[in-house]
Amino acid sequence: MTKKIRGAVSGLAAAAMTALLAAAPAQAQFAKPEDAVKYRKASFTVMAQHFGRIGAMVNGRAPFDAKAAADNAAVVEYMSKLPWAAFGEGTDTGETKARPDIWKENDKFKAAAQKMQDEVAKLNATAKGGNLDQIKASFGAAAQTCKACHDEYRNK
Amino acid sequence: MTKKIRGAVSGLAAAAMTALLAAAPAQAQFAKPEDAVKYRKASFTVMAQHFGRIGAMVNGRAPFDAKAAADNAAVVEYMSKLPWAAFGEGTDTGETKARPDIWKENDKFKAAAQKMQDEVAKLNATAKGGNLDQIKASFGAAAQTCKACHDEYRNK
Repeated sequence: MTKKIRGAVSGLAAAAMTALLAAAPAQAQFAKPEDAVKYRKASFTVMAQHFGRIGAMVNGRAPFDAKAAADNAAVVEYMSKLPWAAFGEGTDTGETKARPDIWKENDKFKAAAQKMQDEVAKLNATAKGGNLDQIKASFGAAAQTCKACHDEYRNK
Repeated sequence: MTKKIRGAVSGLAAAAMTALLAAAPAQAQFAKPEDAVKYRKASFTVMAQHFGRIGAMVNGRAPFDAKAAADNAAVVEYMSKLPWAAFGEGTDTGETKARPDIWKENDKFKAAAQKMQDEVAKLNATAKGGNLDQIKASFGAAAQTCKACHDEYRNK
């Protein structure tokens, strides 16, 4: 190996190490990968329950209650921020439907996760206004971001 | 049956019906009892993860980080409000460790749940102050309320 190539390889190793260390804090929050998996599933479960209650009103399965819609949207927005720290490297195993692409194209996954958080924040803002038609539109946009990510990154 | 007894019985039936209707909103939020069970377990899972991170700092298993402690305490307080609506009548079956006493002495259970929320709110207030000794004391008091409720109302 020439000195130049050796230097480049060691540069790459250093870059990989830096990336690993940068990722470490998020991972270190969970004692074991299965804790991260359990946590992210739990946060999605809570979020989905509250999102579903707005869905029931939007789809006419439940009577529209502006306060309930706003309360549920607030919980959805809060919960939407939680799961992502639990998608650290090494949490692709065990009882999870998460596809390997989450880590192969992590920037794309993160952008999709951000898009969901943005739409859910808009839904929360809209829900505070109490107008069912506007809530319907915001709910639909948010639901699309759930579906897009599930189609791409979650096994059936 | 005399008219007087019939009247008393029908009065009891009406009281029972009123109690059922009063309880309905909380139950009606969940389509099925197993949804309520899954939801409350999920909200406890999320809460426990963040509570445990403060515990790690308090017990010296992780370095003290005032901002992280405050961030985690805020999530714990938020999550502490969620599980209770999922303990409606009829949610004592399926994959749950919840003991029947929760519904037999529901006022006592609710008081224990409120005590936890109060202590966790204090922990959150303390954590904002960033003093580890004070956080230790508040964490201990909050942990006691978890334990008290688990000892009384959760199967091993």
